[in-house]
Amino acid sequence: MDKVKRNERIAVMTRILVDAPNQIISFSAFCERFGAAKSSISEDVTIIDDTLRHNGLGTLQTIAGAAGGVRFRPCGASAHDYAFLQGVAQSLCEPDRVLPGGYLYLSDILSDPVLMRRMGEIIACAWYEEKPDFVLTMETKGIPVAMMTANYLGIPLVIARRQSKVYEGSAVNINYVGGKGSIETMSLSRRAVKAGQRALVVDDFIRGGGTARGLVALMAEFSVEVVGLSFVLAQECPPRKSIDNEKSLMTFTGDGEAEALSVRPADWINR
Amino acid sequence: MDKVKRNERIAVMTRILVDAPNQIISFSAFCERFGAAKSSISEDVTIIDDTLRHNGLGTLQTIAGAAGGVRFRPCGASAHDYAFLQGVAQSLCEPDRVLPGGYLYLSDILSDPVLMRRMGEIIACAWYEEKPDFVLTMETKGIPVAMMTANYLGIPLVIARRQSKVYEGSAVNINYVGGKGSIETMSLSRRAVKAGQRALVVDDFIRGGGTARGLVALMAEFSVEVVGLSFVLAQECPPRKSIDNEKSLMTFTGDGEAEALSVRPADWINR
Repeated sequence: MDKVKRNERIAVMTRILVDAPNQIISFSAFCERFGAAKSSISEDVTIIDDTLRHNGLGTLQTIAGAAGGVRFRPCGASAHDYAFLQGVAQSLCEPDRVLPGGYLYLSDILSDPVLMRRMGEIIACAWYEEKPDFVLTMETKGIPVAMMTANYLGIPLVIARRQSKVYEGSAVNINYVGGKGSIETMSLSRRAVKAGQRALVVDDFIRGGGTARGLVALMAEFSVEVVGLSFVLAQECPPRKSIDNEKSLMTFTGDGEAEALSVRPADWINR
Repeated sequence: MDKVKRNERIAVMTRILVDAPNQIISFSAFCERFGAAKSSISEDVTIIDDTLRHNGLGTLQTIAGAAGGVRFRPCGASAHDYAFLQGVAQSLCEPDRVLPGGYLYLSDILSDPVLMRRMGEIIACAWYEEKPDFVLTMETKGIPVAMMTANYLGIPLVIARRQSKVYEGSAVNINYVGGKGSIETMSLSRRAVKAGQRALVVDDFIRGGGTARGLVALMAEFSVEVVGLSFVLAQECPPRKSIDNEKSLMTFTGDGEAEALSVRPADWINR
């Protein structure tokens, strides 16, 4: 096997690690690929890690032990998070986003891969330490941001439905109090999650909190603990009880009428 | 500004390019970041490109001109695509995936970020040359694979709904013949797409093709051309007319009963 130069090893390792966030890749996999000694790979990892950290582009973490190796996490760019979210918040306040009834048009924002990548990174970095086993969302609008969060956490996405579907198999259905006090249903396939797992709830929007409490109640039916909740947009002075472990990206005040709407990054985001 | 070593430039450039597929990043952005000459950055790009190609991990493309720069595309790993899809196909044939009524349980596969990344890469690489402006999917199950495809193409995702929603604004609704001959509705916000754009349809499943033809008809209402369609699973001997420009990942025969089901990578996937 030809010896591979350090430059080339760094390009390949960075490519592989960045594209598989939070997944542990063993040193021996890299040793075999390059025909290099473990000491060389270790030095490569140190160079990449130092460089990414120095540039606010994430970190590599080395995990010891039999199942050990190295993994990439996109955290470390938090200095830019506030400015990024402030930019999004400003674009949300454009008057032509306000629809009849005071609703806000968000669909373009919520399915833009560039924005969803950054939002997924920020949410993932807020919850790595809680070690969730999967991301849970309620169909439909929150799926892209939930998917990107799951991507950066390296864990599966689970999607609760408004009604059970034949292709989901046997399902647990619950009723919950949705917006405006109406009784609604959500459904999740019995085989989607396992008792004892840890869930991270990610969705687009929280106003009254009915859907969020419904998702927590649904997880209780599966003996799953909800370790955190993140929403793209959360009402700031809501007609709701506060929810534990909520870290949303942006908060808004006002009822959505153009003159009253104000959106800003949430308080926990570092300026 | 300190001079940055080649090793470090390569780590940072690979990190940035891989995380923003198909987005053109200007040479001058890298020159400014590193305080390096354009000739050095050009050499870095050549090293990264050669190395990624040699390892089947994608390519960098240099675009000349005022809006020029360099972009990453994940293509080049196609030698592994067949084996990857064959592995997925095998896991789909496990008997415990067959639900009452002969339906197949796919939800875990369709929201696994590791699998969706690879499928998104394969679909994106099949359609780069057609230069789609956005990816179109029908809610709900196809959203994760459509999102990952949009991510690798670097273009927005657009989600058609089963009914119009207040928070989507004014919408175009059409009726179409769905599975088993029933008349169904799909709806898309009027501001979601623009006349003259090019759409790539991505969804989880095609059997009779009713939904796919519905999406094509919906795009015709917006004067948008559908340049291609990709599905995760396509029925191989379908009770349907063939659809132009279809490149699906896997085909299946059988009606979903455990003994008859057979899933394999589609013919256009290189062995």
